[in-house]
Amino acid sequence: MIRLPFADLVALLARLFRAQGLRAEVAQVLAENCAACQRDGALSHGVFRIPAYVSTLRSGWGAPNAEPVIEDNGAAQIRVDARGGFAQVALQAARPLLLDRVRAQGVAVLALRNSQHFSALWPDVEPFGEAGLVALSVVNSMAVVVPPGGTTPVFGTNPMAFACPRDGEPPYVWDQAGSALAHGDVQIAARQGHALPEGCGVDASGQLTTDPNAILEGGALLPFGGHKGASLAMTIEILAAAFTGGAFSSEVDWSAHPGAKIPCTGQMLLLLDPDRGAGFAQRVRQLSDAVRAAGQDRLPGDRRRRLRAEAEAQGVALTEDDLAMLQSYL
Amino acid sequence: MIRLPFADLVALLARLFRAQGLRAEVAQVLAENCAACQRDGALSHGVFRIPAYVSTLRSGWGAPNAEPVIEDNGAAQIRVDARGGFAQVALQAARPLLLDRVRAQGVAVLALRNSQHFSALWPDVEPFGEAGLVALSVVNSMAVVVPPGGTTPVFGTNPMAFACPRDGEPPYVWDQAGSALAHGDVQIAARQGHALPEGCGVDASGQLTTDPNAILEGGALLPFGGHKGASLAMTIEILAAAFTGGAFSSEVDWSAHPGAKIPCTGQMLLLLDPDRGAGFAQRVRQLSDAVRAAGQDRLPGDRRRRLRAEAEAQGVALTEDDLAMLQSYL
Repeated sequence: MIRLPFADLVALLARLFRAQGLRAEVAQVLAENCAACQRDGALSHGVFRIPAYVSTLRSGWGAPNAEPVIEDNGAAQIRVDARGGFAQVALQAARPLLLDRVRAQGVAVLALRNSQHFSALWPDVEPFGEAGLVALSVVNSMAVVVPPGGTTPVFGTNPMAFACPRDGEPPYVWDQAGSALAHGDVQIAARQGHALPEGCGVDASGQLTTDPNAILEGGALLPFGGHKGASLAMTIEILAAAFTGGAFSSEVDWSAHPGAKIPCTGQMLLLLDPDRGAGFAQRVRQLSDAVRAAGQDRLPGDRRRRLRAEAEAQGVALTEDDLAMLQSYL
Repeated sequence: MIRLPFADLVALLARLFRAQGLRAEVAQVLAENCAACQRDGALSHGVFRIPAYVSTLRSGWGAPNAEPVIEDNGAAQIRVDARGGFAQVALQAARPLLLDRVRAQGVAVLALRNSQHFSALWPDVEPFGEAGLVALSVVNSMAVVVPPGGTTPVFGTNPMAFACPRDGEPPYVWDQAGSALAHGDVQIAARQGHALPEGCGVDASGQLTTDPNAILEGGALLPFGGHKGASLAMTIEILAAAFTGGAFSSEVDWSAHPGAKIPCTGQMLLLLDPDRGAGFAQRVRQLSDAVRAAGQDRLPGDRRRRLRAEAEAQGVALTEDDLAMLQSYL
C-alpha cells in the first residue's frame, strides 16, 4: 500500500484526464472528485473507476469538453443543459446562481440534463451541507433494476444523497443506491464465488436468485425495500429525467460507442435554506445524538469522515497496482 | 354493508366534527379528508379513525380551532405555524400562496410546524398533481420506530408521499410509511394471532421478533429497507421537524392529556413546476407504461383510483357498525 498526499493524487489524476483530451477545468473537477472518493474510502468510486473513464472517453461517447448552458430567467428553478458533459462540471458552473437563489428564496432547485455521472453522489451535496444548506440530490443511471414482479430492467441503480449542517460535527451526509445492492458488489460476489443475500436480484426469467452470475447474465437487481423502494426508484427517474429533460435509464444507448460505460441522463438537486427557522443545526445535532443513544452505533458518513482524517494525516491509500494503472494512462 | 353518497358522508362527518366543538371550516376540511380516505379504500385512515379523533378532541390536546399563521415575506419558502391545529387546515390556508410562488419561481416549499396530522398523506399531495405540479411531502409522527441495532424508538412511522401529473391518466401518486409496517397492521396481526414477516420489528430488549405482541408490549417497529430506510426515517425527522421548527417524534408528550392520540409535529411540502421543461406529463406516462410493461402489474394509486370510481358509481362503503359509531358522536 502506498500513501499519497491528497493534492498529489489530485494533480496526478488531473494530468491523467488532460492526457485523455479533457480541457483543464473538466480534468480538475473530475480529478478532485475521484481523489475525494479514494481518500474517503468510497473505493468503488475512486481510482477503480479510471479504466472505465478512459474507455468511455476513447469511445467518443457524449461531449466531455462541452460547456454547460445555464438557463437563468431569475427564478429559483435553474435549468442546465450539460450538453453531454459531466454533471460535476455543470454543477460547479451553476453553483453561484444556486447559492444566490436559495439565499433569496429559501429554496432552489437545479434541473440538470444531458449530463454524465460516474461518481458517488455525496461529493455533490456535502459542500452545500458545509455551507449551512440542506441539499437533496437524485440521479438516474442505466437500466439494471427490475420493478418487483418484473422481468425487464427499467430503473437505474438511481442513488439519492442528502446533506445538512450539524452543530459541532461535520454535516450529516448520506448517499445510497436505490437498488438492493450496488452493481459492483454483484461483480465482486461473482468473482469471489459467494451467494448474495435474499431479495437482491432476479435471474433472466424474473425468478428471485442469490446467484450473482444469474443476475449478471441476463438477470437484474431489485430495488431495496420491496415495493416502497420501487416507488422511490421510479420517482428518481421522474425527478432526474422527466423533470430535467434528461434520458430515462432505459434510454441510455451505448451501442454506437463500444467501450462507453458512463450513463448520460439527468440529475436533480434541491437546496433549502434552514436559517429561516431557528436553531436548525442544533436540532440536527440533537437528533443525531438521540439516534446514537438509541443504539445505532454508526451513522451515515461516520466511516467516511474517519478515513478522511486518516488520509489527511497519512496520505491517501493506493495499491501499487492502482498507481501503475494510473501511470499507464499518462 | 351500506353505501352512502360521498357528499352525504362528508356532511355527516362535518356535523360530527362540529358536534365535537370544531369550527365549521376545520370540521369541513377534516370531513372531506376522512371521507376521501374511506371512499378510496384507505380504511385505516377512514371512519376507523373517528373514535381517536373524538378522544383527542375531548382530551384538550393541541388547539384544533387555532387559525394558522402564515409568515409570508415574498419568498418561495413559506413558513406556517399551525399553532396546534390540523395540518390539513394550515395547508389549505397556505395553498394560494404556494401556488403563486411555485408558478413564479418554479419551486416552492412549505415549512409547517405545530401541526396535528392523523390522516393519510396522499390527500395532501394529490391535488397538486392534479394541478400539474410535482409534490413531495413528509411528516413525522410519534416515536415507535427504532434505528437498526437500536432499542429505543426515536423515529415516527414517518410517511412520505409524492404526486405528479401523468398524461391521459390520473396523477402518479404514492404514499408510504417509513416503517416496515404501519402500526395498525401490527395491531391487526396481534388481534388475529398471526406472526409478522421477518425484519419488521423488535421486542423490548431490541431483539428481532415476528410476534406482534412483543412489538406492541415495549418493542418497536423497524424502518423499511434496513439502514437505507433508517437514513430516510432520520431525514424525514430533519425535514418535517428540524427544518420546520416542529417537534421531533420523540418529543410528542401526551401525558397531560389522557385520550390524546394525534401527534403534533411538523410537515414539509415541496412543489416543483414541471412546465418549465418540455412534455413532463407525457414522459411520466411513458415511464409508467414501461414499468407496467416490465411486469409490475400494479402501480401505486391504481387500487385507490379503482375503488374511488366504484364509490362514485355506488356510494362509499361503510359497515352498519361504522354508521352506528358515527351517529353515536352526533
